[in-house]
Amino acid sequence: MIKVGVVGATGYTGEELIEVLLKNSEVTITSLSALVDKETQFSDLYPRFAKKISVPCKSLDINEVAAKSDLVFLALPHTVSMKIAPEFIKKGKKIIDLSADYRLPVKLYEKWYGTCHTDTGNLNAAVYGLPELNREKIKTADFIANPGCYPTSVILALLPIALMVAKAGLTVIADSKSGATGAGRKALMSLSFGEVDENFKCYKANEHQHIPEMEHILSCVAGKDMQVNFAPHLLPVRRGILSTIYIQQKGLPEENEIYKKYTEYFKDEPFVRVRPLGQVPELQDVAGTNFCDIGIKVARDMVIIVSVIDNLLKGASGQAVQNMNIMLGIDEKTGLM
Amino acid sequence: MIKVGVVGATGYTGEELIEVLLKNSEVTITSLSALVDKETQFSDLYPRFAKKISVPCKSLDINEVAAKSDLVFLALPHTVSMKIAPEFIKKGKKIIDLSADYRLPVKLYEKWYGTCHTDTGNLNAAVYGLPELNREKIKTADFIANPGCYPTSVILALLPIALMVAKAGLTVIADSKSGATGAGRKALMSLSFGEVDENFKCYKANEHQHIPEMEHILSCVAGKDMQVNFAPHLLPVRRGILSTIYIQQKGLPEENEIYKKYTEYFKDEPFVRVRPLGQVPELQDVAGTNFCDIGIKVARDMVIIVSVIDNLLKGASGQAVQNMNIMLGIDEKTGLM
Amino acid sequence: MIKVGVVGATGYTGEELIEVLLKNSEVTITSLSALVDKETQFSDLYPRFAKKISVPCKSLDINEVAAKSDLVFLALPHTVSMKIAPEFIKKGKKIIDLSADYRLPVKLYEKWYGTCHTDTGNLNAAVYGLPELNREKIKTADFIANPGCYPTSVILALLPIALMVAKAGLTVIADSKSGATGAGRKALMSLSFGEVDENFKCYKANEHQHIPEMEHILSCVAGKDMQVNFAPHLLPVRRGILSTIYIQQKGLPEENEIYKKYTEYFKDEPFVRVRPLGQVPELQDVAGTNFCDIGIKVARDMVIIVSVIDNLLKGASGQAVQNMNIMLGIDEKTGLM
Amino acid sequence: MIKVGVVGATGYTGEELIEVLLKNSEVTITSLSALVDKETQFSDLYPRFAKKISVPCKSLDINEVAAKSDLVFLALPHTVSMKIAPEFIKKGKKIIDLSADYRLPVKLYEKWYGTCHTDTGNLNAAVYGLPELNREKIKTADFIANPGCYPTSVILALLPIALMVAKAGLTVIADSKSGATGAGRKALMSLSFGEVDENFKCYKANEHQHIPEMEHILSCVAGKDMQVNFAPHLLPVRRGILSTIYIQQKGLPEENEIYKKYTEYFKDEPFVRVRPLGQVPELQDVAGTNFCDIGIKVARDMVIIVSVIDNLLKGASGQAVQNMNIMLGIDEKTGLM
Repeated sequence: MIKVGVVGATGYTGEELIEVLLKNSEVTITSLSALVDKETQFSDLYPRFAKKISVPCKSLDINEVAAKSDLVFLALPHTVSMKIAPEFIKKGKKIIDLSADYRLPVKLYEKWYGTCHTDTGNLNAAVYGLPELNREKIKTADFIANPGCYPTSVILALLPIALMVAKAGLTVIADSKSGATGAGRKALMSLSFGEVDENFKCYKANEHQHIPEMEHILSCVAGKDMQVNFAPHLLPVRRGILSTIYIQQKGLPEENEIYKKYTEYFKDEPFVRVRPLGQVPELQDVAGTNFCDIGIKVARDMVIIVSVIDNLLKGASGQAVQNMNIMLGIDEKTGLM
Repeated sequence: MIKVGVVGATGYTGEELIEVLLKNSEVTITSLSALVDKETQFSDLYPRFAKKISVPCKSLDINEVAAKSDLVFLALPHTVSMKIAPEFIKKGKKIIDLSADYRLPVKLYEKWYGTCHTDTGNLNAAVYGLPELNREKIKTADFIANPGCYPTSVILALLPIALMVAKAGLTVIADSKSGATGAGRKALMSLSFGEVDENFKCYKANEHQHIPEMEHILSCVAGKDMQVNFAPHLLPVRRGILSTIYIQQKGLPEENEIYKKYTEYFKDEPFVRVRPLGQVPELQDVAGTNFCDIGIKVARDMVIIVSVIDNLLKGASGQAVQNMNIMLGIDEKTGLM
Repeated sequence: MIKVGVVGATGYTGEELIEVLLKNSEVTITSLSALVDKETQFSDLYPRFAKKISVPCKSLDINEVAAKSDLVFLALPHTVSMKIAPEFIKKGKKIIDLSADYRLPVKLYEKWYGTCHTDTGNLNAAVYGLPELNREKIKTADFIANPGCYPTSVILALLPIALMVAKAGLTVIADSKSGATGAGRKALMSLSFGEVDENFKCYKANEHQHIPEMEHILSCVAGKDMQVNFAPHLLPVRRGILSTIYIQQKGLPEENEIYKKYTEYFKDEPFVRVRPLGQVPELQDVAGTNFCDIGIKVARDMVIIVSVIDNLLKGASGQAVQNMNIMLGIDEKTGLM
Repeated sequence: MIKVGVVGATGYTGEELIEVLLKNSEVTITSLSALVDKETQFSDLYPRFAKKISVPCKSLDINEVAAKSDLVFLALPHTVSMKIAPEFIKKGKKIIDLSADYRLPVKLYEKWYGTCHTDTGNLNAAVYGLPELNREKIKTADFIANPGCYPTSVILALLPIALMVAKAGLTVIADSKSGATGAGRKALMSLSFGEVDENFKCYKANEHQHIPEMEHILSCVAGKDMQVNFAPHLLPVRRGILSTIYIQQKGLPEENEIYKKYTEYFKDEPFVRVRPLGQVPELQDVAGTNFCDIGIKVARDMVIIVSVIDNLLKGASGQAVQNMNIMLGIDEKTGLM
């Protein structure tokens, strides 16, 4: 049994991570840490965990967590992770970091997050944990930067054709819509029920901090700079991201050939499902699962790709556990089906 | 044109009050006050008001508001109203207070709200603004305590039979369900979309501070102490309250006679609609309106009464304007249809 | 008092039309028609109308409705309107048709709706009822084709720059999201709560029948063929459409100049509100109103325009009444504020 | 590996049953039946099942299903089950029936469901599958009548005190609120998003067909007739039932003693969690789980009990699998945690 710790257990991501880890027969949760006043039963904080887990939740004590764990998940806000990750790394622990701190080259990070990076050494060593792109590297990695939710949804939708899109010099437009848990568990007026319910809005259009992650990864894949125009929107649902992606067809092959790129690229992937050509997935197809479903359609000279994920699973905690399974050399699907 | 001011313009209740007043051809809004850093166009705070109102929103200046107003609405939290109302009253302004500060006898207030009442003089002078009960008093009143949302829904549902229920010594159980705006515009985790959406909960069962208001008013009507067992619940909707009320039939007359009490009591009321016997209303029947719809059903020796209101209208701002219309001697329905 | 009839009173659009007409002091509803078994009080069908309207709802009798009306609204499905409209026109009645039957040139209609047009004479005579484009023609029109909901949201967002976009040969992408009432009142599994709630989906991407309406009108405005790539999505909200529109900036002027086109174009429009440059509106800003709010933002060489409307008001019944007001020569805002 | 068949695979209950069975390591699904035109991959009907199950869905062929199965789940409407269950029973198959057909004594069934029972022999043999009441009988049963959703929520909340409530001659009032999937997958206007969203209603108050199930079971437990006054309500959520139950305290012991009855009764139950005295659960505590959470509170001489379940799990398919696990002698929690 592999021993794992969760640092940042009380956010939506941390909570979901615990749910997923509890279903994993190969690991045992040995510690839960969060900003708590005193040691508390996790089920006293969140009654839904009663009779499911009896590990207490404590303030973070790095030595104690390290002593009890083979692998540690960091479900922390950005800028916090880069203070804590190096401590665990020094102690030889495997780390999966769910924050944005280790996903980008230092220059992009500092530009888009507006803050200095204080752990550039580990930044360069971190493996970007998108299994569909980096599975081989993940197998031998000790430190994983788990992808962002929007980038997972957009990058997976473009991976098979990034090269040809870049070559043709085409513009990508990604119009994404996310459920409210994507913003984390926060007491903000803008996230209150009265503001979100029966409402819908666009925010940070072409200014969102997930843009450089999409562009950096896709540019690496394509071997050429790619621009992704990206506008996120807030959906009145708890969970899920649907991205509608538009690319002009001129310069790209026929739709059957485009479609074949997708079916071939993902044919052995356990958590990506490509729909029959012309069909597109919807949010409920993947809610509560680790799947990314992708549909491709070409109409009136426009290639339209729709991808859906559960933002807390394939977009965060599910993917983190998928990465863990790969790192541990166990069946990648363990606890995720 | 009557000049009115709104103090506490930025809460859900204040905002709704402005919407309702804008439809009222007999009044003009002359001032908006709230906790704002500096004078701001109201539509800059809430863009939905653009091209609808051009009165700026300012920090409260009692002298200025009084100078500009014939009548002032106070849409403030409890304990705040009782500091401000006396100032306007001294200046001879008519006041409609939407807080809980002037609804209860001092002893009940201090017991249930856990704080001293600092304006007991005006407390005794305030008229409880439930038109279906106190229309005559409201006509000549200068100071109105506007009823609470839950009490409006429960009291209206019981008014016609309070006397006979009290005489028969029967227990009343009111199971109420309210939309999330009932809690006001607050940045609380418990009111966040992620906690309210797809959720439902019971809170403060038989301990809610609206209980003494229901019991006090109904006991006055019945001339005898009445106990109302009351459990409120939080619905994942923006607005509306539905109360399901249970009373055993033993000691009460036949259902037709009970029903007749309702149709007679409310036959001339512009904003209460009694359904055909055996039918019950639903939330959408009154959402966005000032109506209270009531259904009565007797089945298996149980009298079941269902009432619905829009908590922001008949449960707050709509009723406040109804009271204003009565005070001003204009058509009670002005701006409310 | 102008006498108006509503044919198709029981759909979401018909119901909303009645709500709006009831607030209009210059008209009186004289007849309501729908597919009903027998004459029924409208409030027996929809209890929310109790104490608001006492006109009965009957099966359509064209002679009777014509005899009672100066103007008739047709809130009917497409292909039904073109059977009924000519009858009223023959009798000299003014008509506002809310269906799709009279919005398109016959060729486009037959191609996209897959059916023959049986009233081409009146089709050519119908005025497309978008006041912001055709106000002068509407003033003297007897027969109005009321715009579709998606087209209203997309065309208004593009009107001020259609000419320059067409000249620059740029591609327009409109990603629209609509509430569930947009599909009408239908007992379909795909519209059931269990399928729509907590879900979100894209449908008919670049194949929706509203595309030719957008393209036809914008091409007329631009004097040149314009292609609008359009993907509609189904939001889990009752009402509202938000359209996010993407156009590359190359070939267009600086953002300030683009923005000025909007403020100038709409400066006297009572129901279009342009946000400060860089800000975008959200659904709740216009829910329950006849406004179309528009925001413009230029970022990373992409012009992003966000427009919002209430699909049942500016997208249907509100706009229909706005057209009626213009036709009757009364204040365009009557009953719509 | 136990072989199981699901008859009625395409309803909400059938679909959920498949989800739960897929997590159960001791069984394998060998057939899926439903009203389908032709043999179809289940994931073609419901794409969320792609890469999860490859059993096709066929029209029901009793011989074929029986040949392939050790145990068959019937997720069928009432009156349909009693035509099909006897066929499988004759062939010696274990049956878990999720309909209402075998839950009640014949007289009660015929009175409340308004139809003759055509399989009274098996009716008498069926074991009522509430593990917290009948675990020993379930162990050796071949035929289970799986409880209704509302009855599960109300009966579990009353089991520990039914005897003392009946003795004291007290009236029970159960005000229940259910998510929309409780009504099944149906294309009804009353279940459309436009009617359910932002709405809430009471229906069949004290007339619902689940009343005799509650009363019959609780009366058996108490050894004395018990009346349960029951009003169900429709919540705008997908899943979950919350029941608020009111009993006057007079004639009952002190609250600590009442509470002790609950903790003792359920102390070894894997799927019932009793909250600390005075706390009550909410819907999200059990959504997506097989738990029933119960809270007890005594205030102002009223005993208030709140119970929550997921209507599709503990209220239907989860409980069915819990029953299966008990029948098969495997760990009761298998696949349910």
